[in-house]
Amino acid sequence: MGKKITIYDIAKKLDITAATVSRALNNNTKISEATRELVIRTAKEMNYEQNKLAQALKSGKSYNVGVIVPRIDSNFFASIIRGIEEELYPKGYHVIICQTHDQEYLEIGNINSLLNAQVDGILMSISNANLENNESFKNLLKKNVPLIFFDRKKDIKGVSSVTIDDFKGAYDATQHLINQGCKRIAHLSNDRKLLIFKNRYLGYKQAIIDNGLEFDESLVIETQSKVLEGRKTTKILLDMENRPDAIFSSSDFTALGAIEEIKAHGLRIPEDICVAGFANEPFTKFMELSITSVDQSPIEMGRLTAQVFLEEVNNSKKIKSEKQVVLTPELMIRKSSQKLKID
Amino acid sequence: MGKKITIYDIAKKLDITAATVSRALNNNTKISEATRELVIRTAKEMNYEQNKLAQALKSGKSYNVGVIVPRIDSNFFASIIRGIEEELYPKGYHVIICQTHDQEYLEIGNINSLLNAQVDGILMSISNANLENNESFKNLLKKNVPLIFFDRKKDIKGVSSVTIDDFKGAYDATQHLINQGCKRIAHLSNDRKLLIFKNRYLGYKQAIIDNGLEFDESLVIETQSKVLEGRKTTKILLDMENRPDAIFSSSDFTALGAIEEIKAHGLRIPEDICVAGFANEPFTKFMELSITSVDQSPIEMGRLTAQVFLEEVNNSKKIKSEKQVVLTPELMIRKSSQKLKID
Repeated sequence: MGKKITIYDIAKKLDITAATVSRALNNNTKISEATRELVIRTAKEMNYEQNKLAQALKSGKSYNVGVIVPRIDSNFFASIIRGIEEELYPKGYHVIICQTHDQEYLEIGNINSLLNAQVDGILMSISNANLENNESFKNLLKKNVPLIFFDRKKDIKGVSSVTIDDFKGAYDATQHLINQGCKRIAHLSNDRKLLIFKNRYLGYKQAIIDNGLEFDESLVIETQSKVLEGRKTTKILLDMENRPDAIFSSSDFTALGAIEEIKAHGLRIPEDICVAGFANEPFTKFMELSITSVDQSPIEMGRLTAQVFLEEVNNSKKIKSEKQVVLTPELMIRKSSQKLKID
Repeated sequence: MGKKITIYDIAKKLDITAATVSRALNNNTKISEATRELVIRTAKEMNYEQNKLAQALKSGKSYNVGVIVPRIDSNFFASIIRGIEEELYPKGYHVIICQTHDQEYLEIGNINSLLNAQVDGILMSISNANLENNESFKNLLKKNVPLIFFDRKKDIKGVSSVTIDDFKGAYDATQHLINQGCKRIAHLSNDRKLLIFKNRYLGYKQAIIDNGLEFDESLVIETQSKVLEGRKTTKILLDMENRPDAIFSSSDFTALGAIEEIKAHGLRIPEDICVAGFANEPFTKFMELSITSVDQSPIEMGRLTAQVFLEEVNNSKKIKSEKQVVLTPELMIRKSSQKLKID
C-alpha cells in the first residue's frame, strides 16, 4: 500500500526543490522542457497522483482534452484518436471522447458536456454543416479553449485544421476508374455542405472533365455513410435505363452497400461495374472481393491534430495563429476495380 | 472578445450587492422571487456564465456519465457504448468515453480524469486484474459515484455488473468442435485474473472433460487479444510434435491471427484444423473464410448497464444494492469450423 506520494518525495528523488516539481507539473513556462518531462516521467513511475481538481480550479487547466467524432466504430476515426492519444499521453494529457452519430443535438450537447468537464481543448470532426450558426458553438469560439478541426471541417476564422487533400484523393480514384475503361462513372456523395464531401465531388467531376468524358449530374446522388444507404442508392443507379459502369463512393461503407446491391442484381464486379470507396477501412482489404479505396493516414492525422493543439495551448497568450495542415492521400487499388490486369 | 462578466458586474448594474446576486443565482430561499427573476434575466442579458464546475461541485450532478473500455475500435465495445447512449440520452445524460489500451496507468488515469470531469457515474470494462488494490480505485469506491462493470469485471462488494455467461459460451463452442470430430483442441486464452477469460477457460475445460477427452494443459496458452499475438501463439501450437486439430480462441482477433498462421503453414481450415473465436466481431462474418464465434448481445449489454446505472443514481440515498445481470451467449457456426455438412 505505502503512503501517498507527494511532490516532496519526487523532489527528494530528483534532488530538486518541491517548488520546481510543482512548477513542472503545472506546466509553468519558467521550467525547461527537459526538466518538465523528467518530473512527469518520475511522477508517473512513483505513482504520484496530483489533485487534478484542485489544480484545475487554480491553474484553469484540467489536462483533459475532448475529442468529438461522428462515430467511434470506424477504423478511420478510431485510428485518428489513437494518433491523438499517442501524442498527448506523454505530455500528461488525458483524452476523453464523445460521438455524435451525425446528430446536431448530440454534437452541441457534446461540446457543452466537454466544456462543463473543463477540458483544455476540443479536437473535433464536425457532423453539422451549420455548426457556426449555433449559439453554443459561438460561445465556444469566444472562450479561450483551443478548438481544432480534423477531417470534417468548416472554414472558420481562427480555427486550425488537419485534413487530407480530398480533391486529389477523389481525382486519383476517378482517374483510375477511367484508366480501367469506365465511361459512365456514378458518384455516391454525402452532405456537400461538409467540405470533405464537396471536395471529393469536385475531384471526381474534374477528373471526368479532364478526360473529355461527359459529366452527367444525374449520376451523382447524396446519401449517408451507411451500408444500407449505399444499397438503396445503388438500386436507383442500377434501375436507370443507361446504368453506370463504375461507382466511386465517398465512403467505404456505402461502397460495401453498393457491392452487395450489384451482386444482388446478378452483375459482376469489376467486369460489369467497378467500385471504389474512400477511407481504406480494414474490411476493404479483408473482403473476399477486396475494395479499392483511398487511404487517409488517420494515425498521422491524429498526431498532427494533437501537435497543433499543443502549439495552441502553449501559446494561448500570444496572437492566435491559424494553421491548415493538409495530408496527401494514397489510392489503394484492389479487386473491386481492377478490370485490366497490370504486369 | 470582451472580458468575462462576473457577479460583480451584475451587482453594479442592478445596484445590489454581489452576495445578493450570488444567492439569487444559486436559488437561495432568502431572496425574493422578484429579485431572483431580475438577477437571472440580467445575467442572461449580460451573457453571464455561471461556473458550471463550481455548480457541479455544489449540486453534485453534471449529467455526464463516463464509460471506460479497453478499446473503442472493436465492434463489441462500440456496440455496448451505443446501447449505453441509447438508454441514457433520452434521460438527459451525456456519455463521455475513455479507452485504456489495456494499460494499467491509463485505466487509473481515466478514472481520475472522469472524476475530475465530475461525472455522475462510471461504467467500465476493466483492463487491470489488480484494480482493487489501487489507491485511486479505492478512492472511487469510497465516493458516492455509482460504478458498474460490464463484460470484464471483478467481483467487488457493492459493485453491480452486467456480463454474459462466458462459461456457457466457451462450453458450447468447444462442444461444437468436438461434434465436428476434433480431439485435440487448443485454447488461446488471455489474462485469467480477469473473470471473463477464466470462465471461458473453465467452460472449454469442462466440455473436454464431459466428453471423455484427455485434457492437456500444454494446449492452453495465454496471449493478448491482437491478431499478431494470435499468429505467434498459433506458431507455437503448430510446431508441437502432436499438434492440435482445433483451436478455440477467447478472442476473435487472436482467432484471425490463428487462421493467418495456419494458412501460412499450408494447412487447411477446417479440414486440418478447425477454428472458433469469441465476440462475433463483424469481420468474422465478412471474411472469405467466415469464422465461427460466440455472440454476446453487446447492444443489450450496454442498455442493461445503463439501466443499472439509472437505478443506482436514482436510489443513491437508500441502502446500496448490488445487482449481477448475466446474459446468455449464442454460438454462430461458420466455415472455419464446419467440417461436417449440416442441412
